[in-house]
Amino acid sequence: MPVNLSAPEPAALFPVPGVRIGVAEAGIRKANRKDLTVVLVDEGAAVGGVFTQNRFCAAPVQVCREHLQKNFGIRAMVINTGNANAGTGEDGLARTRATCIALARKLEIAPEEVLPFSTGVIMEPLPIDRIEAGLPAALADARPDNWARAAEGIMTTDTIPKAFSAKVKIGGAEVTISGISKGAGMIRPNMATMLGFMATDARIDPALVQPLARQLADASFNRVTIDGDTSTNDSFVVIATQKAANPVITSLESADGQALLQAMQDVARQLAQAIVRDGEGATKFITVRVEGGRNDAECRQVAYAIAHSPLVKTAFFASDPNLGRILAAVGYAGIKDLDQTGIDLYLDDVHVAVKGGRNPAYKEEDGQRVMKKSEITVRVVLGRGEAADTVWTCDLSHDYVSINADYRS
Amino acid sequence: MPVNLSAPEPAALFPVPGVRIGVAEAGIRKANRKDLTVVLVDEGAAVGGVFTQNRFCAAPVQVCREHLQKNFGIRAMVINTGNANAGTGEDGLARTRATCIALARKLEIAPEEVLPFSTGVIMEPLPIDRIEAGLPAALADARPDNWARAAEGIMTTDTIPKAFSAKVKIGGAEVTISGISKGAGMIRPNMATMLGFMATDARIDPALVQPLARQLADASFNRVTIDGDTSTNDSFVVIATQKAANPVITSLESADGQALLQAMQDVARQLAQAIVRDGEGATKFITVRVEGGRNDAECRQVAYAIAHSPLVKTAFFASDPNLGRILAAVGYAGIKDLDQTGIDLYLDDVHVAVKGGRNPAYKEEDGQRVMKKSEITVRVVLGRGEAADTVWTCDLSHDYVSINADYRS
Repeated sequence: MPVNLSAPEPAALFPVPGVRIGVAEAGIRKANRKDLTVVLVDEGAAVGGVFTQNRFCAAPVQVCREHLQKNFGIRAMVINTGNANAGTGEDGLARTRATCIALARKLEIAPEEVLPFSTGVIMEPLPIDRIEAGLPAALADARPDNWARAAEGIMTTDTIPKAFSAKVKIGGAEVTISGISKGAGMIRPNMATMLGFMATDARIDPALVQPLARQLADASFNRVTIDGDTSTNDSFVVIATQKAANPVITSLESADGQALLQAMQDVARQLAQAIVRDGEGATKFITVRVEGGRNDAECRQVAYAIAHSPLVKTAFFASDPNLGRILAAVGYAGIKDLDQTGIDLYLDDVHVAVKGGRNPAYKEEDGQRVMKKSEITVRVVLGRGEAADTVWTCDLSHDYVSINADYRS
Repeated sequence: MPVNLSAPEPAALFPVPGVRIGVAEAGIRKANRKDLTVVLVDEGAAVGGVFTQNRFCAAPVQVCREHLQKNFGIRAMVINTGNANAGTGEDGLARTRATCIALARKLEIAPEEVLPFSTGVIMEPLPIDRIEAGLPAALADARPDNWARAAEGIMTTDTIPKAFSAKVKIGGAEVTISGISKGAGMIRPNMATMLGFMATDARIDPALVQPLARQLADASFNRVTIDGDTSTNDSFVVIATQKAANPVITSLESADGQALLQAMQDVARQLAQAIVRDGEGATKFITVRVEGGRNDAECRQVAYAIAHSPLVKTAFFASDPNLGRILAAVGYAGIKDLDQTGIDLYLDDVHVAVKGGRNPAYKEEDGQRVMKKSEITVRVVLGRGEAADTVWTCDLSHDYVSINADYRS
């Protein structure tokens, strides 16, 4: 059961002029399942992407990087579930290239104008025959108002499709933003690697789309964790179709650039948080905010130590205010000169620890009251600077173990 | 159920001349439970210790460091379970000092000659009145052949006491080594922080005992992980009572020094591995060996990435040869210039991956056969150097979640 998250209403997802999406059942791993999605992009769109830092990155990730670097422009994407095409060596690369060629032929474009994405089990050969056989149905299905189906088409162990839209006025013109995501952020639960796609019709200098994608990922997908397992396939792509009537954005720091960034960031955060809310076995959505650090990086480091601690996560699952576990995680986060006597801890509005020790005014029942909620904010004040950062995570439950122990059977 | 580990036979644990141990029930957290242990050390012993790197280290850890630095000699140790005295600020320090003073008065020694240890729940005040009230019974119980009771006396969520002994000839003389441990190594499961104590009667330059303790910890306790949560209280202490007849060891690199180191290392490894075998919810004991690295540190880094991956650990629990998860962990271990095409993976004798891809000769049933065993070796060959390192871990099961979700209730 996802935490405070429901399936998107198709009508609430706005088509983005210049983008059409088609979905098909190709039987890649299981029959009768939407497992093949194509995204068709009109000529003239600018596309940027950020990809997993995992050195064992999947074949499609390698090919995406190549194709984006060639800078021929991107006209289509092909996304399969059921197979990650990772840990597959040279053969995996050849199969990904074959997929791009198959779609390019049908669209009469160059294979380098196709971006490929795969998600699913690692170290199994990609069934390219089934993908190729499924492409005509996916292309026949292509239409602008298909975001809800696409959100379904990229699901693996997700229990709910994830899609969000927004409209924003930029330079007097209406600009549309839509996005979908699946899996678990940077952080892979269950081989169900994370994918995120966003499109906007905003007019923007094509050179800004790649830095835009990075800034959006940093503020959203790079701030969530389920289990600390970074996927081989994580990919996040931003499409700017340039179809809106806004004056071209020439800097992300301009007022218009900031307006677009802000609006896209809101959608990206919702997509990223949706992944955590639907995290494997999640019963709670936890915001970990660390303040008073010397810089953002150390705040993030402490926040991730808390968010990755199995002991902290099982305490949230149990609604047990065993809050010393949070202090312990702060302590081992790796900040060498951290002074424990400077640290305060809050759980929502409850002041739990003062200067590294239990707050004399703290009462167990106050901690208990907060721990029972489904949305909880942990706030740590390091007391050594002005920086702050936030990550989002979920608890660790029996279902996480069940889902991952049973995944392939 | 611990993995292939049974309780020690008291008769198989050798007394170490110069060390007496007493255990009592002090009712620190629960009644009718051995929760207070004293270790009495004859004058002239050399003592070294290594302690948690957690910046939120507990009050007793801070006091141990102080007392060892003062170098007055150590004559006694006092160990309580049920309360970690961590996250307790200045008040916690005062309570630890009060405990040392109470024991020192009874023994007519200086408080600085006492080392204090606490393990249990974090952020609760240490009940010093109960500890003080329990000391007479612990002291009355003190005798040389009490190692088995001591192993019980320091247990928290351990399901089985952990103690090992060895005898070794050094310079023609018989030398005895005995040790006990509890909890989960560097890596804290369930607040049940790790403690390890070893004693030998070997004669050795007192200045060598601290480096000896560090070398032993590095080869044993610093190579195990249950859940990646580094404790606030981890402590490992080595006592050399100097009572044996061996020629004084003046260098750890000498033949005699190496003989002692080797024999103590064997006991330390058994103690450390026992912690993993009794890891919370453990059903399997996993050895992760990484070879072909440029240096030991990067081998260890990769080994820990595998050993900490919740996905790898749940796959072991399920006996599911979902081995791409291991490759993924290798990939995100943080070795920036790692080339996936150089990597081979073995599961016991089964060659799973060749040059970063699935071994064409690999059969699922071979992987399945190994995964069903209770002791499994994962071997990764990085193919970029001559270094190798090993860590030991266990699987992640439903019981891990149950134990840690229920710990305080």
